[in-house]
Amino acid sequence: MDDEIRSSFFQTVGKEGYSRKLGLKLVDVKPGNAIVRMVPRGDDTNIFGTVHGGVIFSLMDEAFQVSCNSHGRVAVALNVNVVFHNPAKEGRGLKAESREIHCSQKTATYEIKVTDEENVLIASCQALAYRKKERLPFLDR
Amino acid sequence: MDDEIRSSFFQTVGKEGYSRKLGLKLVDVKPGNAIVRMVPRGDDTNIFGTVHGGVIFSLMDEAFQVSCNSHGRVAVALNVNVVFHNPAKEGRGLKAESREIHCSQKTATYEIKVTDEENVLIASCQALAYRKKERLPFLDR
Amino acid sequence: MDDEIRSSFFQTVGKEGYSRKLGLKLVDVKPGNAIVRMVPRGDDTNIFGTVHGGVIFSLMDEAFQVSCNSHGRVAVALNVNVVFHNPAKEGRGLKAESREIHCSQKTATYEIKVTDEENVLIASCQALAYRKKERLPFLDR
Amino acid sequence: MDDEIRSSFFQTVGKEGYSRKLGLKLVDVKPGNAIVRMVPRGDDTNIFGTVHGGVIFSLMDEAFQVSCNSHGRVAVALNVNVVFHNPAKEGRGLKAESREIHCSQKTATYEIKVTDEENVLIASCQALAYRKKERLPFLDR
Repeated sequence: MDDEIRSSFFQTVGKEGYSRKLGLKLVDVKPGNAIVRMVPRGDDTNIFGTVHGGVIFSLMDEAFQVSCNSHGRVAVALNVNVVFHNPAKEGRGLKAESREIHCSQKTATYEIKVTDEENVLIASCQALAYRKKERLPFLDR
Repeated sequence: MDDEIRSSFFQTVGKEGYSRKLGLKLVDVKPGNAIVRMVPRGDDTNIFGTVHGGVIFSLMDEAFQVSCNSHGRVAVALNVNVVFHNPAKEGRGLKAESREIHCSQKTATYEIKVTDEENVLIASCQALAYRKKERLPFLDR
Repeated sequence: MDDEIRSSFFQTVGKEGYSRKLGLKLVDVKPGNAIVRMVPRGDDTNIFGTVHGGVIFSLMDEAFQVSCNSHGRVAVALNVNVVFHNPAKEGRGLKAESREIHCSQKTATYEIKVTDEENVLIASCQALAYRKKERLPFLDR
Repeated sequence: MDDEIRSSFFQTVGKEGYSRKLGLKLVDVKPGNAIVRMVPRGDDTNIFGTVHGGVIFSLMDEAFQVSCNSHGRVAVALNVNVVFHNPAKEGRGLKAESREIHCSQKTATYEIKVTDEENVLIASCQALAYRKKERLPFLDR
């Protein structure tokens, strides 16, 4: 992956509205792969006081979004399937790692794992993207 | 559904950290069913400027959470599968409606649809919960 | 749906290798919808003596295949998500009903329910197809 | 894994109605893992003449079934999510490999990949099982 493309991803995620709101930090991006981190806060909790499923999904989805767009062509989510294994806890850092397992002209598939800082598996995910023909708009800014 | 239980759900979701952060509003809850609404804002966007998948999922997950807990026993998410049909847009209100299609002693299954205010289908979801034996803690406050 | 197309589906499924092997019978096809039936036999059982998950899936998949191809353009399965609710039993007839919930130029989404002859819900499914541009080859025979 | 348990699995799958009908062969079983093979035949085809999705799923489901029961306690399928990557072809051998990624008292999760004999990825799967308390009945025969 070209340094300029790589750098564009860090800038784009850094300015993205939702990643700023949730504190999602892009840590690494390679062709087909991405790692995103966050630390869930008190305003990320569900009705039981543990971390909301929507927060865990958002973290995974950010890693998915970056990894499926990492080839430089626009890709959009078609389907995401998540299994929740363990509750995540406020204040305990989370990492989502997305790994491409298949890529064709039209679609690409990813496996994403969310673990906490004690390496507990929080959620695992299979995600399918549709690949458009357009080049990523932010690469040409 | 007893008025007191119903009222407890509205209070609990109203105080939930994450629903406040995202502006998720519980609109209705019945045994096995729930409706939640939100209006996505500028800080809910992804790298393409449309609404982030994590926002759409969070809305669905809130409806899922309420519907699977609506029988009064603690239920937790095991698996959620989402298909994304159309992009959602900033400023255009979204509604998630969760409907129970099966409930046994140990598990329960829900179909959830997200539509926007022009009735465009944004996402659809199949969600599976594990039902614990404990009564919901906030019912006895 | 034109009578000739409808009749082509009945003929094509009737001659299909796998539907004959499993005894899958197409009962109805309409644009976006299909119903398929079967009666599981002794050679359809799993290691516990109930009906194998592969049999239940095959029945659903046949209904999915017909429904997503019913518009006359070739469609192929991208993703199928199944929740199993109750075991199916040898000798007790099964019905899969596939219903289109969304259809765009490129993809289409279906909800499929499998019930037995006592109307017990056996499995429910969300399925996503990719729509090619080609017309179904067997329509022009 | 104890030799007697291992041997019981080979015997049980060897006698299973559906695995005989489809020609599913258990190749390996270890705690949490299983490999199953088959060669699709002319009667395993769909309306386009490639291998039916139900056949591919059945192969995966057999590997899932063995892997989730491999700890000696009865486990049943709750949810299976499949992504189809490439068509499988008649006469070209298929292998399904199931790998446990998480196991708790109540549930366990598996990733299953189906490849053909040229190592083309045909399908990938995420599968969730519910673990009962009972010991596998066929271990005590």
